[in-house]
Amino acid sequence: MWVCRALSGARGRAQVLRALLRACGRRRSAAASFSASAEPSRVRALVYGDHGHPTNVVELKNLELAAVGGSDVHVKMLAAPINPSDINMIQGNYGLLPKLPAVGGNEGVGQVVAVGSSVTGLKPGDWVIPANAGLGTWRAEAVFSEEALMAVPSDIPLQSAATLGVNPCTAYRMLMDFEQLRPGDSVIQNASNSGVGQAVIQIAAALGLRTINVVRDRPELQKLTDRLKNLGAEHVITEEELRKPEMKNFFKDVPQPRLALNCVGGKSSTELLRHLAPGGTMVTYGGMAKQPVTAPVSLLIFKDLKLRGFWMSQWKKDHSLDQFKELIFTLCDLIRRGQLTAPACSEVPLQDYQHALETSMQPFVSSKQIFTM
Amino acid sequence: MWVCRALSGARGRAQVLRALLRACGRRRSAAASFSASAEPSRVRALVYGDHGHPTNVVELKNLELAAVGGSDVHVKMLAAPINPSDINMIQGNYGLLPKLPAVGGNEGVGQVVAVGSSVTGLKPGDWVIPANAGLGTWRAEAVFSEEALMAVPSDIPLQSAATLGVNPCTAYRMLMDFEQLRPGDSVIQNASNSGVGQAVIQIAAALGLRTINVVRDRPELQKLTDRLKNLGAEHVITEEELRKPEMKNFFKDVPQPRLALNCVGGKSSTELLRHLAPGGTMVTYGGMAKQPVTAPVSLLIFKDLKLRGFWMSQWKKDHSLDQFKELIFTLCDLIRRGQLTAPACSEVPLQDYQHALETSMQPFVSSKQIFTM
Repeated sequence: MWVCRALSGARGRAQVLRALLRACGRRRSAAASFSASAEPSRVRALVYGDHGHPTNVVELKNLELAAVGGSDVHVKMLAAPINPSDINMIQGNYGLLPKLPAVGGNEGVGQVVAVGSSVTGLKPGDWVIPANAGLGTWRAEAVFSEEALMAVPSDIPLQSAATLGVNPCTAYRMLMDFEQLRPGDSVIQNASNSGVGQAVIQIAAALGLRTINVVRDRPELQKLTDRLKNLGAEHVITEEELRKPEMKNFFKDVPQPRLALNCVGGKSSTELLRHLAPGGTMVTYGGMAKQPVTAPVSLLIFKDLKLRGFWMSQWKKDHSLDQFKELIFTLCDLIRRGQLTAPACSEVPLQDYQHALETSMQPFVSSKQIFTM
Repeated sequence: MWVCRALSGARGRAQVLRALLRACGRRRSAAASFSASAEPSRVRALVYGDHGHPTNVVELKNLELAAVGGSDVHVKMLAAPINPSDINMIQGNYGLLPKLPAVGGNEGVGQVVAVGSSVTGLKPGDWVIPANAGLGTWRAEAVFSEEALMAVPSDIPLQSAATLGVNPCTAYRMLMDFEQLRPGDSVIQNASNSGVGQAVIQIAAALGLRTINVVRDRPELQKLTDRLKNLGAEHVITEEELRKPEMKNFFKDVPQPRLALNCVGGKSSTELLRHLAPGGTMVTYGGMAKQPVTAPVSLLIFKDLKLRGFWMSQWKKDHSLDQFKELIFTLCDLIRRGQLTAPACSEVPLQDYQHALETSMQPFVSSKQIFTM
């Protein structure tokens, strides 16, 4: 959670915001703090004071940059994406909500500018990513506590580093933690063109797993199919194809998957369940259709299907920072070997946030919006 | 699977049935077999030749009793209940369906009359229950292979022995195999007045667990509540009460359950999920509402709820006969200590099967129909 002081044009408005911030309390542990300097630096940030539709509630503001305390780190942000979970958080539909006002964005990469006297794990020039969700990454610069950050190698592409901490981590853990899969086994997923979906395709291919990738029918479907196959997808099928009886023939040639990854819910998730092998697991990590997961009773009882959920923030709570570092390093190895690339990104300057937020919420957008500062 | 030879009044019909049986093939391993005797004994049995509404397809027939081969056991059935799964099997809605024609009933207790020369584990006078589903227990006598049977102690009440192999086993395994519960923990279940439900209440109480028992509102609710509390239920609430916001206050005094047992599906199961503790598991073992289990995506992702299924027949496939015996002996210990009683039973002679089948399918019937031969 992060606390800001707004320096908007209207003095009265700034005072109201300041009062609000005091009411929220100051939490320095993972936060920029108020500057003690008489003439504080001002940094641009995308701030929201209420939950609501992102383009209505997010504003570009100039915030005071806090002084760098002993355990603090001054970071210049380099790139920060707009993820679906950032949108959900602003809308108020997320399992973790920051105190308001808050800076948007939970992911991104920054470069260390300066460190406090007691900081030992980071030095100027290092690349850092947030250790946890809720940091507020959509801003030019910030002062964070050391423990809120984690160093990442700077020999990987900037866009990979900026999109490393949530989606590829989610993809990797879901592939590893629910079913013991072996090379040649297959995995089925929906929303296969999402950030997680693209990471699943690539990591699965690196592990020798065969992916069955379900996407919504759309204009230029062949182009999408080609792109996903180029990433390592073995099969790309539409939601409509998945519902057809002919899918039975499909599974004469492809082993029935023991793992299904569901980011949609509703009918799409029921179809994934129908095609799982007996004893298999469906892991839900998103609900794009805004409909619940519906499981026929017979599939639970007679097919012994297992329904689980996954949330990377919970995984981090349940594991040590060292375990998270190990995960990040594993993914960096895949990146260096060319087995894991960032999703297609459109770089957007911070001031074009209105357009970027709108675009990120459109259906069938294959390019991730990523703020460059 | 069991194969019979019909001796119905009309000779032509018997021939047709005989031809059908030959077409099905003879499986002696868990079966009565054709008698080689010139004048075979005839035994009464409830047979169905097609799937459909039980009172339409089940008929009382006289079947030939097979000769007792070397590894066979001649059993006189003492009592056999009508379980919901027997009805589902006759209707054709079950995970395991016998070849037709078949004798109804999957559970019951019989007494050994005679054994073949190579039978070592059973002797005349022993009580036996089916080792697996599909034996066909609604008949006066039968010749089974030794491996299709399991001895049970004869010092427990007859009705307990007749209803031991399915419902109390299901209840015990669901309480033991999904969440590690400790005395004082609570368990929530729906269909609490079912055979499994009553066993859950009693076994949970014996383990020091607190049960929250959901039932449908009905005439004489207080009578049912008193009866379930008398069995050891800590709380009895209706489906309607479970949906009220006041349930939040309820969980100020009672620990949130980590385990939910669902025999209903539909809305009832969604409500069970809402009241589970984070990380908890809902086990589905029935679908009385004939509606799928519906799980809000947020409960899977942010509350890490787990949805599983349980089927005793699958458990038996996955475990040895010795493990099943151990389970039966554990339950017999509870019965002897007075901690586990049979559900209220109405004894019905085999010839009154039409009425018994109808009654077993009525809502709000608190008494299990049990055939005595």
